[in-house]
Amino acid sequence: MTIPNAKHFDHTTPSSELAAAMAKPVSFKLLYWPIGGLAGTAREILAYGDAKWENLPSPTPNTWQEDKLSTPFHCLPVLYINTEDGKEITMSESVVVDHYLAKQFGLLGDNEYEEMMIKSFHCSSATFQSRFSATVSWNQPESKAKSFQQFKATSLPTWIQTHEKHLADNGNNGYYVGNKISLADIHTVCVIEHFSCQPEGDEIMELINKSEALAKVRENVLKEPKIAAWKASAKHQELTEASKAFFKDPLTFFKNEGK
Amino acid sequence: MTIPNAKHFDHTTPSSELAAAMAKPVSFKLLYWPIGGLAGTAREILAYGDAKWENLPSPTPNTWQEDKLSTPFHCLPVLYINTEDGKEITMSESVVVDHYLAKQFGLLGDNEYEEMMIKSFHCSSATFQSRFSATVSWNQPESKAKSFQQFKATSLPTWIQTHEKHLADNGNNGYYVGNKISLADIHTVCVIEHFSCQPEGDEIMELINKSEALAKVRENVLKEPKIAAWKASAKHQELTEASKAFFKDPLTFFKNEGK
Repeated sequence: MTIPNAKHFDHTTPSSELAAAMAKPVSFKLLYWPIGGLAGTAREILAYGDAKWENLPSPTPNTWQEDKLSTPFHCLPVLYINTEDGKEITMSESVVVDHYLAKQFGLLGDNEYEEMMIKSFHCSSATFQSRFSATVSWNQPESKAKSFQQFKATSLPTWIQTHEKHLADNGNNGYYVGNKISLADIHTVCVIEHFSCQPEGDEIMELINKSEALAKVRENVLKEPKIAAWKASAKHQELTEASKAFFKDPLTFFKNEGK
Repeated sequence: MTIPNAKHFDHTTPSSELAAAMAKPVSFKLLYWPIGGLAGTAREILAYGDAKWENLPSPTPNTWQEDKLSTPFHCLPVLYINTEDGKEITMSESVVVDHYLAKQFGLLGDNEYEEMMIKSFHCSSATFQSRFSATVSWNQPESKAKSFQQFKATSLPTWIQTHEKHLADNGNNGYYVGNKISLADIHTVCVIEHFSCQPEGDEIMELINKSEALAKVRENVLKEPKIAAWKASAKHQELTEASKAFFKDPLTFFKNEGK
């Protein structure tokens, strides 16, 4: 595994210099598990922005105990940004990474109010994904089935209904905000894809697929040529297949964790 | 319950006008359950900023099925912002609310790099809190004990160690970034307070209290006169007691949810 030299955050270079450097990225390296998960949105924004970027080789459960010490929070994704003036900046936490990349590639709307709405939709979908992850994917085997039934009865319909309401408020044009693609649209489509990779995916998608408003968002995102090309790529398809395999039994993948 | 007139997001006023209005708030109303939970940080920033603000009367489980329809995502907290030009703006999702308030009151550092670090620490602590919430507080009764043991063996020490590392990188001065208080410090102290209100609080606090680096952050935050005054207030103490009572059995409080 190749973890770049920059580790954690930089407290030696003046932060004003790092701030200036962050605004002028030239290339990106993304470190994550070899699945979609929490890195799907970042990868899709990088594809949309036609950025120079690569997926770093993923750690394995065997090397992770050591590898994780080089990450800011002992978790992934981590984004490494190479800047015009030769700096390398480390960024962690998917919300922060998604916000930063969205800003670089014009996906936060036209002003602070639009940005606030876009980040709210992003946050709502991220919470929806992480709730499923914590209460179903990673829950104790004896609780999974009951928690999934609760998820289907509460979180899932609430997410669909509230997002349909906001899409209707924006005229049901297949965008969350205004008349153009934003982080909100890309993230929601990634979250839906994440659910389609779950062992419970068929049951979940049956409900999501009934939503015409969400289908329009998906249509608009997939109409973007760079995103369509990324999704059709062998690498993306490999990640999708790996996600499906991984979520069949995530606990086994990490069976050495926490020991 | 008094839910202000502004509901969801505003698609009729031009968003540029709303963006300008957002930057000139005059007063705030916060809608949340009558506990600390996900609103603790927002309340503390409002206190720190000496803002004109109030807690709206909380919904009850009996009225919530109807009340929630007036919130953007059928969840709390929601922040209502009254602006200089007479607008009322609705904001939801605690991450978005915390970021907005932190920006208004100068709690995001001196530049984009410091802001990125501050938001990463905020996000890491928020994820730590929500993981406990999903896997212990709200988990099925039969899984709580096992999930809590896993939390104690993995998430808890990881959070302490990684945050201690970042605090050491900043010179162990009791601030996450630079030499002054930020959203990161306030949020971490609120998250620690949240844990101290849990039925498992004693066991968790035994580990957290061993960290001198985190103790210094707590000291610095409590040294802020406006925060100290808020924490000493009858209202804050009432919220703390209510949090303790609530988390003893959160499922019972919402027993009508999802039916």
